[in-house]
Amino acid sequence: MLNTLIVGASGYTGAELAACLQRHPYIHLAGLMVSAQSSDAGKCLSELYPQYKGTLDLPLQPLTDVAEAASGIDIVFLATAHEVSHDIAPEFLQAGCIVFDLSGAYRVQNTLFYSEYYGFEHKNIDWLEQAVYGLAEWQAEKIKTAQLIAVPGCYPTVSQLSLKPLLEAGLLDTGQWPVINAVSGVSGAGRKASINNNFCEVSLQPYGVFNHRHQPEIATHLGTDVIFIPHLGNFARGILATITCKLKAGITEEQVRHAYQQAYHDKPLIRLYEKGVPALKGVVGLPFCDIGFAVQGQHLIIVGAEDNLLKGAAAQAVQCMNIRFGFEETQALL
Amino acid sequence: MLNTLIVGASGYTGAELAACLQRHPYIHLAGLMVSAQSSDAGKCLSELYPQYKGTLDLPLQPLTDVAEAASGIDIVFLATAHEVSHDIAPEFLQAGCIVFDLSGAYRVQNTLFYSEYYGFEHKNIDWLEQAVYGLAEWQAEKIKTAQLIAVPGCYPTVSQLSLKPLLEAGLLDTGQWPVINAVSGVSGAGRKASINNNFCEVSLQPYGVFNHRHQPEIATHLGTDVIFIPHLGNFARGILATITCKLKAGITEEQVRHAYQQAYHDKPLIRLYEKGVPALKGVVGLPFCDIGFAVQGQHLIIVGAEDNLLKGAAAQAVQCMNIRFGFEETQALL
Amino acid sequence: MLNTLIVGASGYTGAELAACLQRHPYIHLAGLMVSAQSSDAGKCLSELYPQYKGTLDLPLQPLTDVAEAASGIDIVFLATAHEVSHDIAPEFLQAGCIVFDLSGAYRVQNTLFYSEYYGFEHKNIDWLEQAVYGLAEWQAEKIKTAQLIAVPGCYPTVSQLSLKPLLEAGLLDTGQWPVINAVSGVSGAGRKASINNNFCEVSLQPYGVFNHRHQPEIATHLGTDVIFIPHLGNFARGILATITCKLKAGITEEQVRHAYQQAYHDKPLIRLYEKGVPALKGVVGLPFCDIGFAVQGQHLIIVGAEDNLLKGAAAQAVQCMNIRFGFEETQALL
Amino acid sequence: MLNTLIVGASGYTGAELAACLQRHPYIHLAGLMVSAQSSDAGKCLSELYPQYKGTLDLPLQPLTDVAEAASGIDIVFLATAHEVSHDIAPEFLQAGCIVFDLSGAYRVQNTLFYSEYYGFEHKNIDWLEQAVYGLAEWQAEKIKTAQLIAVPGCYPTVSQLSLKPLLEAGLLDTGQWPVINAVSGVSGAGRKASINNNFCEVSLQPYGVFNHRHQPEIATHLGTDVIFIPHLGNFARGILATITCKLKAGITEEQVRHAYQQAYHDKPLIRLYEKGVPALKGVVGLPFCDIGFAVQGQHLIIVGAEDNLLKGAAAQAVQCMNIRFGFEETQALL
Repeated sequence: MLNTLIVGASGYTGAELAACLQRHPYIHLAGLMVSAQSSDAGKCLSELYPQYKGTLDLPLQPLTDVAEAASGIDIVFLATAHEVSHDIAPEFLQAGCIVFDLSGAYRVQNTLFYSEYYGFEHKNIDWLEQAVYGLAEWQAEKIKTAQLIAVPGCYPTVSQLSLKPLLEAGLLDTGQWPVINAVSGVSGAGRKASINNNFCEVSLQPYGVFNHRHQPEIATHLGTDVIFIPHLGNFARGILATITCKLKAGITEEQVRHAYQQAYHDKPLIRLYEKGVPALKGVVGLPFCDIGFAVQGQHLIIVGAEDNLLKGAAAQAVQCMNIRFGFEETQALL
Repeated sequence: MLNTLIVGASGYTGAELAACLQRHPYIHLAGLMVSAQSSDAGKCLSELYPQYKGTLDLPLQPLTDVAEAASGIDIVFLATAHEVSHDIAPEFLQAGCIVFDLSGAYRVQNTLFYSEYYGFEHKNIDWLEQAVYGLAEWQAEKIKTAQLIAVPGCYPTVSQLSLKPLLEAGLLDTGQWPVINAVSGVSGAGRKASINNNFCEVSLQPYGVFNHRHQPEIATHLGTDVIFIPHLGNFARGILATITCKLKAGITEEQVRHAYQQAYHDKPLIRLYEKGVPALKGVVGLPFCDIGFAVQGQHLIIVGAEDNLLKGAAAQAVQCMNIRFGFEETQALL
Repeated sequence: MLNTLIVGASGYTGAELAACLQRHPYIHLAGLMVSAQSSDAGKCLSELYPQYKGTLDLPLQPLTDVAEAASGIDIVFLATAHEVSHDIAPEFLQAGCIVFDLSGAYRVQNTLFYSEYYGFEHKNIDWLEQAVYGLAEWQAEKIKTAQLIAVPGCYPTVSQLSLKPLLEAGLLDTGQWPVINAVSGVSGAGRKASINNNFCEVSLQPYGVFNHRHQPEIATHLGTDVIFIPHLGNFARGILATITCKLKAGITEEQVRHAYQQAYHDKPLIRLYEKGVPALKGVVGLPFCDIGFAVQGQHLIIVGAEDNLLKGAAAQAVQCMNIRFGFEETQALL
Repeated sequence: MLNTLIVGASGYTGAELAACLQRHPYIHLAGLMVSAQSSDAGKCLSELYPQYKGTLDLPLQPLTDVAEAASGIDIVFLATAHEVSHDIAPEFLQAGCIVFDLSGAYRVQNTLFYSEYYGFEHKNIDWLEQAVYGLAEWQAEKIKTAQLIAVPGCYPTVSQLSLKPLLEAGLLDTGQWPVINAVSGVSGAGRKASINNNFCEVSLQPYGVFNHRHQPEIATHLGTDVIFIPHLGNFARGILATITCKLKAGITEEQVRHAYQQAYHDKPLIRLYEKGVPALKGVVGLPFCDIGFAVQGQHLIIVGAEDNLLKGAAAQAVQCMNIRFGFEETQALL
């Protein structure tokens, strides 16, 4: 049994992590922690999430001393704000923990990226260089030996899983940038008081047009530019990405399908649609990323769907952990 | 043209007031004001409410000096917090304005009520005594000469409009307290950041069981005790009240219907259902209170529905103003 | 391994049954069947429910011959229309199957009930008399030896689970009928095309006032009259019941709490609230019935919540099966 | 006063037409008609739409004889199925009525289009050739003298209004087809029983990928090819289109803004966003089309929003009528 800590356990992603890890046969959930300043410190997780009453009545402890918290801990999940992850990950790493960071703090190995898109200066360059990007289906070999895994979030995961097989197979004419139109549920904004997320205010709308931090993250890891247009949707969970791109001349639907099958035939959390395209309802509450597509001439439309809190966050983090420790990839997920 | 001010114009009720009053032929909308501390001060109403872009692009001005604001003003609508209304209503009244207060500050002529249910000591007893309760269908004569009208809010309006005709006609056995089960849309909580009103958190649930301040307000004005159980519903607007009560022995369905018709046959904002009961969708966006009922033996179930922001707030306030100034009762409402 | 059949597997309840039973360690899901006339016959369950793609890709077979279908089958779940269950249950029973009927066809041992409320004449009186009512927490002893278990549906389950401990303990003054105000998600109407269930038409509203068939079912099994007011809510899943009743003079909150604890301290699918009352979000997707209450003088308000498709249907049916066969009560449910 | 008939008045669009026309000062609503086979024939509009109780209690009459129905009628709105409009429009036209057809039957002057995309053979070629496409902001001159106006529907309206100013100004590099990602509310599917539109089934998802009939309609009228990807959204009303396209080299944001202003500065139902992009909530219940955009290099993202039943259907039809008869363009709309 591996002693495991979740920091930032009161948020939507943290709570999903707790639920996954609690049913994991090889994990001992050693503690749920929140920021020492959090008004949730001292509460029980099930006070915040009544669905867990009787099954996850664990206390949310204030994180006051990282070294102390790290003592005896094998694995740490950071479901914390970017700056917090940036600051505390090194302390857990130095204490020997394997760290799965769900924030953006270690995802892009370019310090300019952080000053420009996250508004802070990255000071832990060594760890940034050692971090492995946890896009689970594509990084298994690197994950297996990593100490710090930077798990990608919702938009980057569905976008890259949808596009990467075709880019790797060289099927796309990237002279025309892929257009990623994605709609996310409100939970993507985290569990916090905010006028914009008030029930009465939420309404389908684009945001961060041409200046969302996930655009460079996706482009960097794909190795090609993209146009990325995130939208807030009026639903709680899930994300649906509709991606339009251009095939190289002469590429057939069959070749596209073959590329996906090559990439994912042995990946249990990817579900390829033989016909038609996914809908949001197919993935809510589930750890899958569903992918379907349609071709017309050189035009290709790909539709990817995932639960933003699961394959787009907690489930992928646990999947990375399963890979890292040699457990079955879907352990505690299916 | 009467010069009219809305204080608290940035909230859901304030914005509805602005929309109603702007189309009123005898009203000049002289200003939209917000608390001087509000982060909305200086913004345009249509920045907060994009539906008003191009039609209600009025600035939200900070209320810094009441006496100055009252200068040249005939009518003031206070869509402000209870304490704020308590404090500023007298200043506007002393300046000669007719004041329609949509808060709870002047609704119940019992100062103990305020210390117990609102958490503040009422210091304006004279005005409290002079205030007329603005349940429009029942208070027209008093409203016509009042200077301060305390407009009832969402739950009390639908509850009283549903029960009062039967109580006045002496049809109910009040030994068994009427049970008012009501479900309100999230807008009832106002336009503010709050975890509880976050899109992801909202879910049908009762609140304030046995200790909601509207219970004594309803009971006082009806003159009989009631059990009142408010619920938060997962919709933005509207309120539906399902009321169970006991008829005196021998009272017939026909007598119940007759009591409603007597009370409301000449009331344009009450719609009586001849058969069946109302649904929420019938009233959203409209100034009506819909009422239907069913009888079985001595058991009576009444269903009342209204838009909480309209008949339960802004539209009733404007209706009171129409009555006060001798305009057509539905002016600017239908 | 017990060979198990689900008839009516294409509906919301049938699909939930399939998901539960597939993960049950002692059950072999021998077949998913639908009416021979159904347009779903021949399809795969995951075509109707994309969430099951890859995990429940089972075919929906037309039920053409009951005797043939029953061959080799130990257990049958009927998630069928009332008349269909009425007709086919005896055939499965005669073939020796243990039958869990989720329809209303065998719930009330009074044939007049069926002609009056269900519109058909009950012709299987012997089986009706032998049927055990599957309110799991209260009928375990009888369920253990029954061949036909009539599993109660959503409204009766939450209503009875909320009231029965107090009635059994003699705490209620039933001279004043308990008032059950309940709001159900749209899935309660089943998976079918209907204007009323169209996304654009759904809106909070009461229905079946004073003439809903669940009123006499609840009253019969509780042994006391009730007022029952069902509402359609604008959400997909779940049911919340707010019940107002009168305590006998002198009964204390403590006695009420004690009665619930006595009844349910060893019942794993009932979660009692120590303080506060349940919300819908606490139970959606879960097999629990949550119960909380508040007392003021002789007035008692009870709030019960459950997922209408789980504790109000499929999960309770599986719970009954677990009891019937001596498995752990929560097997495949938690 | 012009005698006006609505055929297909029971649908969502028909009902909106009725509400608009009833408040129009120069229109006499002479009749609401439905198909003779409709189960709604004989009902009152407010039975179907409780919001209209007391204000639009008009009977839905069966259309049995077109010639008889046309007698004395000046204007007919056809909110009917495509085939029905195809068949009955000529009869009304021959009787001298001015016809506003909200179906697709007369929108594209290419008979092959109908056999390929609508599944019927177009037999009224003369009328098809005479029909004027009712994209109100762009066709005013032709509308003024037309007898048959084919009013475009929801997707084509928002798509063309968003793109046409830039195409007319020659700003787009159409070598790269504009990508129109649009999400429509469920009301776009009409008022009918359907599993897909069941409250429990609706979920964000693309449909009609590469084979939706609106793609060729948009392309034909714009004179350039587009990629069109419609989605069903989980909301009742409204449509939001996110359009990605490529500017010619050297075109500036200023030139884009200027093109919109040139096209729409005198168009009262178009609202241009100076900064930011529209949200769905800004247009629901309103007759506007809101348009905003963002530029980065040669990349241009346009966001258009409208109420699918208003600017995307009924309000635009009334706007066309206002133009046709020389009334103020926004009469009965604002």
